[in-house]
Amino acid sequence: MSLFSPITQGFLFTDFYQLTMAQVYFNYDLHLLEAQFEYFFRSYPNYGQHQAGFCIFAGLETFFQWLNRAKPTPKDLDYLKTLTSRNKKPLFSPAFLDWLAQIDFRELEIKAIPEGRAVHPYVPLVTVKGPFALAQLIETPLLNTLNYQTLIATKAARIKEAAWGQTVMDFGLRRAQWLGGNAGTRAALIGGVEFSSNVGTSSILNLPPKGTHAHSLVQAFMALGYSEEQAFEAFAQIFPDDCILLIDTINTLESGLPNAIKIFQKLQKKGHKPLGIRIDSGDLAYLAVQCYLELKKAHLEDCLIILSNQLDELVIQQIITQIKQEAHDYHIIPEEIISKLVFGTGTRLITSAGCCSLDGVYKLTAIKKHSDWEPALKISDSPSKLLIPGEKKTYRLTDKRNKYMVDLICLETEELPFNNKEFTIFHPQDSNVFRTIQSKDIAKIELLQIDIQKNGQIVYDFPDLKTIQKQKEKDLEHLDKGVKRLIKPHNYHVSITKQVYALREKLLKKYQNKS
Amino acid sequence: MSLFSPITQGFLFTDFYQLTMAQVYFNYDLHLLEAQFEYFFRSYPNYGQHQAGFCIFAGLETFFQWLNRAKPTPKDLDYLKTLTSRNKKPLFSPAFLDWLAQIDFRELEIKAIPEGRAVHPYVPLVTVKGPFALAQLIETPLLNTLNYQTLIATKAARIKEAAWGQTVMDFGLRRAQWLGGNAGTRAALIGGVEFSSNVGTSSILNLPPKGTHAHSLVQAFMALGYSEEQAFEAFAQIFPDDCILLIDTINTLESGLPNAIKIFQKLQKKGHKPLGIRIDSGDLAYLAVQCYLELKKAHLEDCLIILSNQLDELVIQQIITQIKQEAHDYHIIPEEIISKLVFGTGTRLITSAGCCSLDGVYKLTAIKKHSDWEPALKISDSPSKLLIPGEKKTYRLTDKRNKYMVDLICLETEELPFNNKEFTIFHPQDSNVFRTIQSKDIAKIELLQIDIQKNGQIVYDFPDLKTIQKQKEKDLEHLDKGVKRLIKPHNYHVSITKQVYALREKLLKKYQNKS
Repeated sequence: MSLFSPITQGFLFTDFYQLTMAQVYFNYDLHLLEAQFEYFFRSYPNYGQHQAGFCIFAGLETFFQWLNRAKPTPKDLDYLKTLTSRNKKPLFSPAFLDWLAQIDFRELEIKAIPEGRAVHPYVPLVTVKGPFALAQLIETPLLNTLNYQTLIATKAARIKEAAWGQTVMDFGLRRAQWLGGNAGTRAALIGGVEFSSNVGTSSILNLPPKGTHAHSLVQAFMALGYSEEQAFEAFAQIFPDDCILLIDTINTLESGLPNAIKIFQKLQKKGHKPLGIRIDSGDLAYLAVQCYLELKKAHLEDCLIILSNQLDELVIQQIITQIKQEAHDYHIIPEEIISKLVFGTGTRLITSAGCCSLDGVYKLTAIKKHSDWEPALKISDSPSKLLIPGEKKTYRLTDKRNKYMVDLICLETEELPFNNKEFTIFHPQDSNVFRTIQSKDIAKIELLQIDIQKNGQIVYDFPDLKTIQKQKEKDLEHLDKGVKRLIKPHNYHVSITKQVYALREKLLKKYQNKS
Repeated sequence: MSLFSPITQGFLFTDFYQLTMAQVYFNYDLHLLEAQFEYFFRSYPNYGQHQAGFCIFAGLETFFQWLNRAKPTPKDLDYLKTLTSRNKKPLFSPAFLDWLAQIDFRELEIKAIPEGRAVHPYVPLVTVKGPFALAQLIETPLLNTLNYQTLIATKAARIKEAAWGQTVMDFGLRRAQWLGGNAGTRAALIGGVEFSSNVGTSSILNLPPKGTHAHSLVQAFMALGYSEEQAFEAFAQIFPDDCILLIDTINTLESGLPNAIKIFQKLQKKGHKPLGIRIDSGDLAYLAVQCYLELKKAHLEDCLIILSNQLDELVIQQIITQIKQEAHDYHIIPEEIISKLVFGTGTRLITSAGCCSLDGVYKLTAIKKHSDWEPALKISDSPSKLLIPGEKKTYRLTDKRNKYMVDLICLETEELPFNNKEFTIFHPQDSNVFRTIQSKDIAKIELLQIDIQKNGQIVYDFPDLKTIQKQKEKDLEHLDKGVKRLIKPHNYHVSITKQVYALREKLLKKYQNKS
């Protein structure tokens, strides 16, 4: 059977233990108890020499697209029927499978932070409330979808921050993770990449796909007895208004560039505007400066200079720094060159090179016993892994400089202290770290999560890509520059209120006495 | 539109430039010239502190599953019709789109090395011969599918090598790259993992999915006023013959282990055989030893001890080393404990942590002019990136110790020198490095690539997972231990013949004179 088969992309796109646990809850009649799970991450991606000071949340609409196809099909259930225990008895009972056949994930109430927002550790990004077994059953696809897209959107945002406002393109599909590359492309576009070479995914997102040409075009023409110039000419004739020429197949400065200039001048004579050159090897900063000088001499200074080859945020920052230094030697304002650059990113973006996973988790935080919510806790050996239990909401406070000052996690039922003259907030894991907020310093207070699914239906209009991109840009403007620094960024404050802190302490004592 | 839409998983699962280049070839009537492309990688994955000395080839059948759905659909073509140039003219001509509508990828002749084989840099893994534009159009999905699966199969093989023959399980779906996780699961199973938690993909591969339970099971029971023991009891009642208990929700040694032992003893009294415990946090080696001692005291020494939490090949090797040291303190033969271990790997396997991409490329190596094959070359600035041009075949030689001695790349038309007493072979990139092979030292000669698609049809029976796994085991047995070493492995020899070397030199001179 094919790996493209629908059985791999629906209800059974999950971990086996979700199903075994659901059967336990079903048999003990716990499956319909109301429970609450939260999705959050504990630390920003750390790329080794550098690390993120924020993440860009992405993947939510894709997750709901899965949810929309997640009702078990007869084939899914037939397969589960075939599974047996070690002594050859059916693993799943007919009663449980009958129940599975009629589950409806629309019963879950789901709140979330919108895609494109800057987000931080410990803050609940998605809160799922509803029948315990249903909320458990969505764990794997939720984590899978949100972890990867948030990881890639974050990497893309960093690359875009490094690019000095210049266009960034995604060429990563060939080094992506099979169909995962489609989600990676979407996330890259959310995070700040303007265009992608991925045709299918661009079509879904109403964005024109973009590209140049490959070395094989020049190689083929040469093997057939033609020249590099003739290869360029052929490409230019077919795409006279979108002509980008890859100039490093033979020798960038000796062959590719002069040939490209000849072709561009012919295009100009015919009334077309040549688009640009691409350089895919060598010292990209040096070559960009040299190419710009030659293009300018030929009155082609409007041509774009597209750079590619293992680019990431640090390499792009280095290239720009080097161009600033080199431009001086030629008495050129560096911005004259930099404003022509386009960065093509591939492998290092689509794999989030240096940190290829986000540690997002989906944890039970409360369950309803009779009519009361009981907070849930996992007592692990590491304090940084302690859950923040109970029903919660998160406020983002903006200061008088119009910068975000803190994400404050409160209990859902909590009276907020913003009317007090001042109030104390705590580090989410370390109670020795606290600070006092003066209410007069707060310019704006907003709730981060909004309702997505409620009363059996989706109550949210998923925004289009452009809207999500604007949301991301707006959020980054409200972050301090130090938080956006590529290396050793300043800490953004995430805090909990006194009440949240007290609830966890109480629960911790109760469990430790009981176990 | 949904990211699950078929338009993202068929012909348009590709880079845009494949389409623009195909139109250039079409317009210049080069599209049906016979061309040859090769897929190969230039270097083994390098994980930073450690690196691979071999790769396990994987993804071939999945690529052919894509090829089987790659004929452009009317929707694909309608979409391409909508794309316009910068001055609003259609980018693709009706004639080109008509041609696309009737292309048939079965016209391509494809040879490949079977999945599961140990493979090495520069060796052509897949060779595609056929109409130039068709061979170009499959580049992106071919690279995407083979790069990722080979990367993950290689990581899995390393993890399995580190596991001392103990079972390894894949739990990675939640940190995988969206649907890419399905390909990752398949590759992990090819590389050496015995079972996966991924239900849908396991079903496709005729393998039972496996799993344990999550912390949320214990948390939920406790929040509802029950104990950890009662949570375990509930799980054991539903799955008495497959009962694995996760013992680190509260406290592994003080709570989880004694509770598990109580439940296991009850199961035994009822005639069931408890399966094992899982530990997901803490000092896994220390805890494994302590748990084994307690299980043994309770006459439960047959229980499996499943370890998980950010495991990879180095961590597993460290755990085994530590257990060997600690076992002595308790006068136990270390193998007594080690033989009970099962390793659950997740994030670090499914992302190939430390090196999250394989640098596989797909390059034009020859094109037919009139009736002669013209070798093609890309002259780049780095000698390690020089192509090996022309039509080729690769032999793997086995020595008298039954170990693989060299992969030798020859011209397709070349008379082989194996009948000579001795012959000289060259490093694939550095002609100063050569060695002489004595024919008497060769015990076996085999051609690595076999025909997969020929004369318009698939001529290969894709083997099932078990067969591929056996192929992989066999190949690893034939590799020297030094090549399989996790850190600083010994170099496996890949060489080219004198004729291949001479062809490249000739071509290089010709192009350099011409450009």
